[in-house]
Amino acid sequence: MTDTVLASTTHETVIGFDRPFVIIGERINPTGRKLLAEEMKKGDFSRVETDAVAQVAAGAHMLDVNAGIPLADEPAILAKTVELVQRLVDVPLSIDSSIVEALEAGLSVYQGKALVNSVTGEDEQMERVLPLVAKHGAAVVAITNDETGISTDPDVRFEVARKIVNRAADHGIPNSDIVVDPLVMPIGAMGTAGQQVFHLVRRLRTELQVNTTCGASNVSFGLPNRSAINGAFLAMAIGAGMTSAITNPLEPEITRSIMAADVLAGHDQDCANWIKANRQPAAQGEGRRRENRRRTGR
Amino acid sequence: MTDTVLASTTHETVIGFDRPFVIIGERINPTGRKLLAEEMKKGDFSRVETDAVAQVAAGAHMLDVNAGIPLADEPAILAKTVELVQRLVDVPLSIDSSIVEALEAGLSVYQGKALVNSVTGEDEQMERVLPLVAKHGAAVVAITNDETGISTDPDVRFEVARKIVNRAADHGIPNSDIVVDPLVMPIGAMGTAGQQVFHLVRRLRTELQVNTTCGASNVSFGLPNRSAINGAFLAMAIGAGMTSAITNPLEPEITRSIMAADVLAGHDQDCANWIKANRQPAAQGEGRRRENRRRTGR
Repeated sequence: MTDTVLASTTHETVIGFDRPFVIIGERINPTGRKLLAEEMKKGDFSRVETDAVAQVAAGAHMLDVNAGIPLADEPAILAKTVELVQRLVDVPLSIDSSIVEALEAGLSVYQGKALVNSVTGEDEQMERVLPLVAKHGAAVVAITNDETGISTDPDVRFEVARKIVNRAADHGIPNSDIVVDPLVMPIGAMGTAGQQVFHLVRRLRTELQVNTTCGASNVSFGLPNRSAINGAFLAMAIGAGMTSAITNPLEPEITRSIMAADVLAGHDQDCANWIKANRQPAAQGEGRRRENRRRTGR
Repeated sequence: MTDTVLASTTHETVIGFDRPFVIIGERINPTGRKLLAEEMKKGDFSRVETDAVAQVAAGAHMLDVNAGIPLADEPAILAKTVELVQRLVDVPLSIDSSIVEALEAGLSVYQGKALVNSVTGEDEQMERVLPLVAKHGAAVVAITNDETGISTDPDVRFEVARKIVNRAADHGIPNSDIVVDPLVMPIGAMGTAGQQVFHLVRRLRTELQVNTTCGASNVSFGLPNRSAINGAFLAMAIGAGMTSAITNPLEPEITRSIMAADVLAGHDQDCANWIKANRQPAAQGEGRRRENRRRTGR
């Protein structure tokens, strides 16, 4: 039973074994979104604002914020985006970059307890990111690859997760502040990708007692009708014990599948969230907002 | 690795651990369908015919046939329905009654290897149904309740399954011809109903090495948006190792969720069925028919 507590200035979101699944909205990310990248580089954050508000209204319990724009001042843009999003919405943020200076800039302006996305099992990266996480009292997403790349053997990926958890402990970071990403491969390229993740999630939960997350949409890369695959994947991942995902709450099929899986996993007491969200289809956004308030203690 | 082989005169359907999930169409059942009950009692089988053809076109790999009409001659009506449906469609049938004489009447006219639905763990019922199953070389659905009723403790239900498997062995029926129904309670009435089933399915698969089935739609009884709950339930059940279900293939959300879960469980080689069914939405029925041919060796 592990709870990872994230916070903004006013509200908490808890990722935990026996709690409703936490949706981390993925939309504020210029990777593959050319228009958004150009706008953010020019200092136009109108689309970021729209995405922030829409994702929370659709049920996101946290937002991932990424400013990875080629040839731009990523640390400055990430810090500015974090400040802006925190002014707009109450949910805690995941500060997302592969550049340590950008993570540092984002953390320096963040108010509350952030989720740092991410640290890998590479020695040099761990030695730079983990002290930062410890200094800011943040939590961190641990990605299960290291210097040798991403292993196709899930048990090797498990050992990378164990290495990060142990190294984090050396820096005073408890396992409850580590959310492991088992890495989801495209099922179209690797038919065992789903089974691998479900197996890993079970091991991570029982053996390392850590919460888990993933970039869910990667699983359907290259396939038709991706949101149906993503929705079924998330339901099965919740069945295996996964506790959060970085995904798109604006796709109704995904949010619906997550909420249904919460019911079936026994994480939606008296099916209250489900009934609220489905009794009056016109008020679905409101149902999710109410649920957010309950979840975050508002 | 257990395969349960069912057959009509010309085709086989195999329920198995590493195979695509088997959909047993539930529609030919007058329970709760007043109009159908009246028509069947009067000898009008036009709706049965429509339901049979439509379910197979929508992707059913088997059809359940039930003739439980109050104050009617159930054995005669069930036998007639079985004959009629076998003339119309190629898929194997599940012969469904709580009355042993009706099972006997259905089996006496069935051509191929049927699934008898069902036997419970009640001594008297086992001693009447199992010899019938053995005599006809059929397979049987084992329901995990006995004289004491349906236990709310899944481990008690597991022991009932074990008792039926052992008793069946005394009658020469191998565990590969037993498909256990772990019994799905409404999640709205019992919040642990989903977890119970997933736990039981894993135990049944690893400890008794039997295939599993269930009446999936029971899980959503009393809740709004039932097909979304049913779809997520089936995906999670497939993740836990369930291998078939008696459900409604005419609900696209259910069929889609099952097909997506087959992809994610690694049971749809090269995602071929998924791609066929989703590339050309207009030809989805055709995609499923093609898949049936492949599955049944046509």
